[in-house]
This record gives sequence, structure tokens and C-alpha cells, in this order.
Amino acid sequence: MKMKKFINAPENLAQELLEGLVAAYPKKVKLEEGKIVVRANPKPEDKVAVVTLGGAGHEPALSGFVGYGMLDASVVGDIFAAPNAVALLAGLRKFKRDAGILLVVLNHAGDVMSANMAMKMAEREGIKVKSVLVADDISAGVDTPTADRRGLAGCIPLFKVAGAAAEEGKSLDEVLAVAEKFNARIATLAVAMTGCTHPQTGQPITELGDDEMEIGMGQHGEGGGGRSKILTADETAKIMFGDLSKAVSLKSGEKIFLAMNGVGATTPMELAIVFRAVKKLAQESGVEVVGGIIDEMLTVQEMAGFQMIVCVLDEQSEKYLAAKSNAPYWTEIGE
Amino acid sequence: MKMKKFINAPENLAQELLEGLVAAYPKKVKLEEGKIVVRANPKPEDKVAVVTLGGAGHEPALSGFVGYGMLDASVVGDIFAAPNAVALLAGLRKFKRDAGILLVVLNHAGDVMSANMAMKMAEREGIKVKSVLVADDISAGVDTPTADRRGLAGCIPLFKVAGAAAEEGKSLDEVLAVAEKFNARIATLAVAMTGCTHPQTGQPITELGDDEMEIGMGQHGEGGGGRSKILTADETAKIMFGDLSKAVSLKSGEKIFLAMNGVGATTPMELAIVFRAVKKLAQESGVEVVGGIIDEMLTVQEMAGFQMIVCVLDEQSEKYLAAKSNAPYWTEIGE
Repeated sequence: MKMKKFINAPENLAQELLEGLVAAYPKKVKLEEGKIVVRANPKPEDKVAVVTLGGAGHEPALSGFVGYGMLDASVVGDIFAAPNAVALLAGLRKFKRDAGILLVVLNHAGDVMSANMAMKMAEREGIKVKSVLVADDISAGVDTPTADRRGLAGCIPLFKVAGAAAEEGKSLDEVLAVAEKFNARIATLAVAMTGCTHPQTGQPITELGDDEMEIGMGQHGEGGGGRSKILTADETAKIMFGDLSKAVSLKSGEKIFLAMNGVGATTPMELAIVFRAVKKLAQESGVEVVGGIIDEMLTVQEMAGFQMIVCVLDEQSEKYLAAKSNAPYWTEIGE
Repeated sequence: MKMKKFINAPENLAQELLEGLVAAYPKKVKLEEGKIVVRANPKPEDKVAVVTLGGAGHEPALSGFVGYGMLDASVVGDIFAAPNAVALLAGLRKFKRDAGILLVVLNHAGDVMSANMAMKMAEREGIKVKSVLVADDISAGVDTPTADRRGLAGCIPLFKVAGAAAEEGKSLDEVLAVAEKFNARIATLAVAMTGCTHPQTGQPITELGDDEMEIGMGQHGEGGGGRSKILTADETAKIMFGDLSKAVSLKSGEKIFLAMNGVGATTPMELAIVFRAVKKLAQESGVEVVGGIIDEMLTVQEMAGFQMIVCVLDEQSEKYLAAKSNAPYWTEIGE
């Protein structure tokens, strides 16, 4: 079967999509050489810069979250492939400043390797940079050590919280502390109904049976262990929210931010139906859902499925999540 | 093959999805009886209300565009089915005011019938309401009479422009005039790569061959006449933008707003690549793309494809498009 995608030459995919993305939002973002997406109006140098890195093919993530109140820059690799350390270093150099840089790294081998090498090289050049590792995937079990958890779409609310703290003028150590505190209580679980096609090779990156779904599948088709027959929205919500609640030790009286991130073919209709079910479950446990997002934020090509993200809030993170941002793909949760 | 969707009982789909949608954005929208989505903070009564109606299953449209600066209410039917006239009348009653109501109607038989009947009944009750018909689909040919053109996602920038005019305090006739003027130069063309499944019946609403695409397919699988082998992003952009340019009589020196509306499985990656191609074509014709949107705004379940929307701007509509809105699924195009 011929791959059904609107593309041109496979080798130019990442560059072309980034050119298109910034072309749609010229007042917000622009593209610099080396596949680095930056704000159209840079943040003042006396504030901490928040930078991330990652492969392409997951749009609008990560570059769609560059903007006031969120990221200063996203350093982009190729499809499903992290940028190399030299490319990332070029990105960090742009934000050399006394206030420093917070680098948000998603826990995938390629990203972590590039980040570690680039940070060492940056240090030698006198660039002040600290990092936070997002490892929100709980598919390997709620007690898995952080090193074995993948970084999923929980990075996006983290960008928001760290970005708002940076915008407020907090120091690098303070922004890092805010990010780490929030990060400690983010958990994400993915579910897939279909596989998808690698847009450069036309090959499937994973396959599922006609009547199967898989809870826990990673965003490159990595196994999740939770393969089952297709369940209803309510049943799926119950299993996933149950696991997520345990992972973040959610207690009655706490407040959460809840996001349903569609990864491709799953409709906003379905995401909304699952959101409704989870909100009911939360209420039954005495947990307040103070706001949420139902949207495609981090996609996996045309895969059917979604990532459910639970973030436990305190007064500070609730305020930061509701703060202003003009990033093209962030939905403000305030009035 | 079993339908691969996260749903519960098919008969409750529309109600459940609306409950979920408003649950995610409680500070922005709420759901009233009769499947009517309204703003959480109503617009003052001395301003014109902007209301629309339509079937469900196309989320986030139409209800996702209720909010400050856009719609006051969306009256929702069942999956792919307009609300009946009595339901719509109930919606109009909520906005009875001296300033009046602008009803935005998408050109589909069911919607038009409900709108016409409800408006007659409303008039008898002393409710002041005027309507504007969105018929932006040019698939039947650029010279087709309005009556034969379907209403597609061009309604969304129209909500924005009419909504901003209403927010400014313009009279009903003035808001209508703004909407009609903008409406006269919106054109939309859809393209599909795959069919999709009706979420209540599990039946395909249309099918396409493994190597086929179809330019012009409507948002319920209606034929478009432009079936071909799969083309590249650049080739597809050239054909579609060529037809759209003719339809709106686009001239060198004019400014446009350009939107790529993903209808389901087509990735933001692809939409961005097509956006890039169209922006280049526009520039070559001396046309300025002042801003755009790359997003899923009006979906057709898990169909692969998109709708390309071209709106020719004047000073007024450019200002209104860039005005503030807090509707959950509108992306602000200003800084």
C-alpha cells in the first residue's frame, strides 16, 4: 500500500515542515539555521531562557510551544531523531546570558546523549545551563525508576510552568526548582488503537490487530505491555486514570490539571468523551480538575490513540499554568 | 473490522462529548440543556449575539469556537445531523435582546431547513435575528451558484470576524454587513486521502483506493469530482491554491489569511508542508499571507485529508481576525 501522506522529498521533511509552521505564525515564531525555532520577539536577556530539543514528526510538539510564557527555543532533529550535540550547542549559544538557560530534556536515549554532550561543551564556553529530565511515562509500571521511564507529552505543561517562572524573573536555580517540583508529580500514560507509518520510509512503526488496543505504547511504537481487546471510553478511562493516580500518589482534596493529547487519528470527540469520564472519576475520589486541554499537542503521525496526562497542582503551579502565553499551540486555561 | 474508537453507547455520543468539552474549559464555556454550548461569562445584552448551529462529530467545531470575540452559542445536533428547528429556537430564545442575533448557518440542507423554520418562529416571538449563509466550498466549480456550494471550515474565520465586530458594539445590520463582506471572499477546498467511520453505526461514510486521493470531498464524504493518484504536497498545494485563487478572484497586492484545517488523520507535519508550499505560491503571485492557522478546527472523524481555506482581507477584516478571543480552539494570530 502506498503511503498516504502529503509530503515532498523525504529527506527535506523536517526542514519543510518547520518552514511551514513558522510561516503560519510570523508574529510569534521564526526559524533559524540549524532547524532552531525561536520567538519572533525574544525574551529580555536578564531572564532565564527555556530551551528544549527533540525529533520532528510529532507536530505541533515541540516547536509549537515556543512563545511568550513558554519556550524560548526548540532545537529540532530529523524525523523521530534527536538533533546532535553540535546542533544543540548552536542553539544554546544563542541564549548565552548571565541569567542562564534551563534545558528541558525528554527521556529518550538520543535526546539525553545530545543534551549531556552539548551541556559539557557549553560549560567549557562559559554558557550557564542546567537541565530537567521529563520522564513522565508510567507504562513500565508505577514503581519503575526514572531512568526507565520515557518522556511523553507531560513535557508540555512543564514548559508552561517553567516558562512562566522564567518570565517572572526568577533565577535559574529557582526556575529549576519550580520545574523539578512540578515534574515530580506529572504522570502520563499512552494508549494506541492503530500503528502508523514512518513518513520517510513508508514502513509501519508498529502494528495492532483489528480488534486490539494497547495501553502503554510509546510515541515511537515502543511496546507498552497493555494489549487488550478494544474497551469502551469509560473502561479505558478507569484503567488509565487508576494507574496515573497511583503513580502520582493522588489524594482526595488535591487539584489536578488533566490533558488528553490526541496522537493522530483519534478524534477530539473521543478525547472529550474520555475527559468526561476521567473528570467524573476524579470527582468521585474528591479530586478537583481545575482545567485541562483536549487537543493534539504531541502527535505520532496518523496513529489512533492518545496520551492522558495528570499533573498534580499546588498554588504556584496552578498560577503558572494559568499565566499568559502566546505560543501557537498552547490553549490558555484562564478566562 | 471492529470500529476503533474510544466511545460508549452510540446514542449518547453527542451529549457525552459536549460534557467533556466544557469540562476541560470550565472558565470559558458551559453546556446548557438541549445541547447548547454557551460562554461561561456571557456577553452584555447591549451587544449583538453571534450564534451558530450544526451536527456533532466534527470537533472541535463548532462549539470549540464559543468564547469572547467569537460565538455566543453553538446549538448542536446529533452526529452529522443538524439540530431541529425547535432546539435551535430554544437557543435563540436565550439571546433575545434589542441588539439582536446574527445566526451563522453552514450551507447543508438540514442546517438551512432548521435555521429557516427557527427564524420564522423566533420572529413571531419578537426575537430579532438575521442570518448569514456560509457556502465556501468551491468543489463544484468556481462558477457554481452559492446554493450549490457546501459550508465548510471557512465558517471559523467568519465567526471570528463577525464576533469581533459584535464585541465592538456594532449594530446587527453592521455586524451582518461585516460578515457578508468577508464571506464574499472566502473559499475552501477539501482533499481526502482515506474515508472514515460513522461513529454511531461503525460503517464507512466513504472509501478511497489505496493509491487514491480526492480533491473536493465534502465533510460527510460527499463526492468532490477530483479523484486522482496520490500527489506530492507541492503538487496538491498548486492545484488547490490555483482553484481557490480563481474562486476569490485573488489579485496581486492583496492580503490573505490562509488556514490548513486537518480533518482527522493527516498530521500537522503535512499541513505545515502544504502551508509552506502555498505561501511560496502566494508570494510568487504578489499576494501577502498575513497570518494563518495550521490545526484541526473542523474534523471528519479519522479521515485523512484537509481543507484549505483562503480569506481575502481588507483593513477591517485583518483587524478583526487579529482581535482577542478566548475561544478554546481559536489560535490568536497577533503577537
